[in-house]
Amino acid sequence: VRSITIDCTAGVGDGEEAIAAAALASLEVDLEEAQVVLVGDETDITESLKEHAHDAERVRVLHAPDRVDRAGSARAAVASAPRSSISVGLAFTGARPDRAFISAGHPGLIVLEAQRHLDRIPSVQRSALAAVYPTLRHRGATHDPFALLLDIGATVHCNADDLVCFSAMGEAYARKVSVVERPKVGLLSNASSLEATPRRIQEAHTRLRRLAGPLDIEFVGCVRGDQVTLGNADVVVTDGFTGDVVVRTLEGAVATAVELLERAEERFRWRLGVSMLGGPFERLRELTDWENYGGAPLLGFTQPVIVTQSNSHRRAFFNAIRLAAKLDRTGVMQAVAESVSTLRETERGG
Amino acid sequence: VRSITIDCTAGVGDGEEAIAAAALASLEVDLEEAQVVLVGDETDITESLKEHAHDAERVRVLHAPDRVDRAGSARAAVASAPRSSISVGLAFTGARPDRAFISAGHPGLIVLEAQRHLDRIPSVQRSALAAVYPTLRHRGATHDPFALLLDIGATVHCNADDLVCFSAMGEAYARKVSVVERPKVGLLSNASSLEATPRRIQEAHTRLRRLAGPLDIEFVGCVRGDQVTLGNADVVVTDGFTGDVVVRTLEGAVATAVELLERAEERFRWRLGVSMLGGPFERLRELTDWENYGGAPLLGFTQPVIVTQSNSHRRAFFNAIRLAAKLDRTGVMQAVAESVSTLRETERGG
Repeated sequence: VRSITIDCTAGVGDGEEAIAAAALASLEVDLEEAQVVLVGDETDITESLKEHAHDAERVRVLHAPDRVDRAGSARAAVASAPRSSISVGLAFTGARPDRAFISAGHPGLIVLEAQRHLDRIPSVQRSALAAVYPTLRHRGATHDPFALLLDIGATVHCNADDLVCFSAMGEAYARKVSVVERPKVGLLSNASSLEATPRRIQEAHTRLRRLAGPLDIEFVGCVRGDQVTLGNADVVVTDGFTGDVVVRTLEGAVATAVELLERAEERFRWRLGVSMLGGPFERLRELTDWENYGGAPLLGFTQPVIVTQSNSHRRAFFNAIRLAAKLDRTGVMQAVAESVSTLRETERGG
Repeated sequence: VRSITIDCTAGVGDGEEAIAAAALASLEVDLEEAQVVLVGDETDITESLKEHAHDAERVRVLHAPDRVDRAGSARAAVASAPRSSISVGLAFTGARPDRAFISAGHPGLIVLEAQRHLDRIPSVQRSALAAVYPTLRHRGATHDPFALLLDIGATVHCNADDLVCFSAMGEAYARKVSVVERPKVGLLSNASSLEATPRRIQEAHTRLRRLAGPLDIEFVGCVRGDQVTLGNADVVVTDGFTGDVVVRTLEGAVATAVELLERAEERFRWRLGVSMLGGPFERLRELTDWENYGGAPLLGFTQPVIVTQSNSHRRAFFNAIRLAAKLDRTGVMQAVAESVSTLRETERGG
C-alpha cells in the first residue's frame, strides 16, 4: 500500500491508542514505506503525536472536525456530521487501490461511506464484515486455529444472492490469508432439515451445491451454531443480523467463563499459587483475545478496509495496520474480486 | 396433572433413558399420583419396563408403531409416519388441561402436532420454545442464576406481534417459575441504534415501550448478544432462527472451553493433582449442564409441553417430568395465558 488511513477518534482513549499505533507504524520498515494518514481533530492529533516517537516524513494529518454519535444511526450521522473522521478518511482513501482505511468507529457509517467513496467489486451487491476467530480445530501445517465468520454486521438483511456472494468472498479470503488450501464453507443455519430453514438459506444452499464443483469450493452445506467454535467449517456464512448476535454472544460467553474461573481461582489461590494456574486460564484468554487478529476486514471493495472493535487498544490498531499492508502485499482483495467474477461467469454458464 | 405422557422413542438409547425416567416417576409421591403414559413401540416399552422398578398402577403404555426421521421435515413426517410417538402422544394429550407431554424428538413435529391436537392460548398466533439457562448474574433471595431465552426454534419467521407476544409469555413464565419479582425483558438485537435493527424489532420495541407501563413489565429495550450470558436481561426475546443459532453457539462455546481446559489440565496434572483443579472445572460444567433444567417449555398452549434435548439421559427426562408437574401445580400456564389476555386487552385500549 501507498497509504494507510487511521481513524484517530475512536477506540480506547477516543483516538489516543489509534495515534500511538499510527506513530509506531510510521517507524515500521515492514510496512513498505507506506504513508500513515491520521484523520481526526488536527490539533488533538498534532498535540498527541508529540508524545510518541514517529517518522514525520511518513506521517500525514487530515483534519475532520465533526464528531459522530456512536449510538445514532449512520444516515443521521452523514447528515449531522458530514466531516467526521470516517467520512473525511474514506473520501481521502477514495477509489485508489493503493490506499487502505482502518477505523474503530461506527460500523454502519463505515459501510455507508465506503459505498460512497470506494470502488465496489463488480457485481457485489452488498458488502460483508468478516470476523476472524479461533476454533478448537487446527488447520494445515501451521496449525492455524482460525475460522472466518461473515457477515457480522455490514448487511442486516441478506437475500440468497448475498449469502452466495459472501461465500465466494469469504472462501477466497480464507484461502489467501489462512494457510488452508481448501477451506470448508458452510451456511449457518437453524435445523438439520433444509426445509425448516429460511428460504434465503434454502436458495443459497441450492446454488452453492451447484457452484461448488465448477468453483472448486468445498461446500459443506448447513452448519448449526455449535460448529462456529468447534470449527468443522472454516468459513461460516450468515446475514449481518445473525452474525452480530453470534459474535456478541461469544464475547459474552468468554467474559462469563473467564469471570467464573477467576472467582474459582480466588478461592483456590491459597493452596495452589497463582502461577500454577496460569496455563489454562492464559490459554483461554489468549485464544479469545481478538486484539491479536487485527479487526474485521470489510469485503466487497477493491481496497482493504478494516473495522476494529470499539474498545481497541494500540495493539489492535497496530495489528490492523499490519493486516491492511498484508492484504495489499499478498493480493487478497484481488483474489476476492476474482472469486466473485468467476462465480458470476459460472452462474451465467460462461 | 392427571397424566404426563412421555415420548419413549427419543433421547439417549432411543427411548431407553426415557423409559427409565418414566418408571422412576411412577414411584414418586411428589407427582400427585399422576398417571405416567409411555408412548412408543408397545413391545419394546413393555420389555424394557421389566428392567425398572415402577408402579404398574400408575403406568400406561400407548402403542405408536411409526418412526420419524429426525433429519427430515415435520410435514413429511406427518405424512410418512402418522402414528409416530409424537402424533399419538399429543393426540392422547388432546385439549385436556390436566395432561402434559414430554419429548426429546423432532421439535418441528412436536410444534406441528401440538397445534393440531392441543388448545392454543387465545390470540397467540405462534408458539415459542423457551430455554432456561444460567447466567453470571444472580437474582433474588435464592440467588437464581437463570434467565429465559425464547423462541429457540418453534417459530422460524417471527413478525413484530410474535415478538411482543413472546415477551408477555416469557415474562409471565419467568415471574412464576423463577423467583424474580419483575423480570427484565429485552429484545435480542444487532445494534445500539434502533434504526439499524430489522423492522420487526423496531415495531416490537415501539409496542413494548407503550405496553410496559400498563402491563407492569420491566422492558429494558434492545439487548446485544453479550447480555445473553452476562444476564442483564432475565427474559431475552428473539425469533426461532436466531434463538436456535444462539443456543447452539453457546453449546459449542462451552464444549470448546471445557475441551481447552481439559487439555490444559492434562499438562498440569502432574504437579497439581486432579482434585485440586476440580473446583473451577466442575463449576463451569455444572452451570452449563442443561440436564439439570428439565428441557424447554413450549409456550402458547394451555397445557405443559416440554421439549428436551435429543441427547437426554434419564436425569433430563426425570427433571422434565417434575417440571411438567410443577408448571401445572403452580398455575404457570394460566399465568402465561392471563398475561397474553391482558396484553390484548391493553392493546385494544380496554
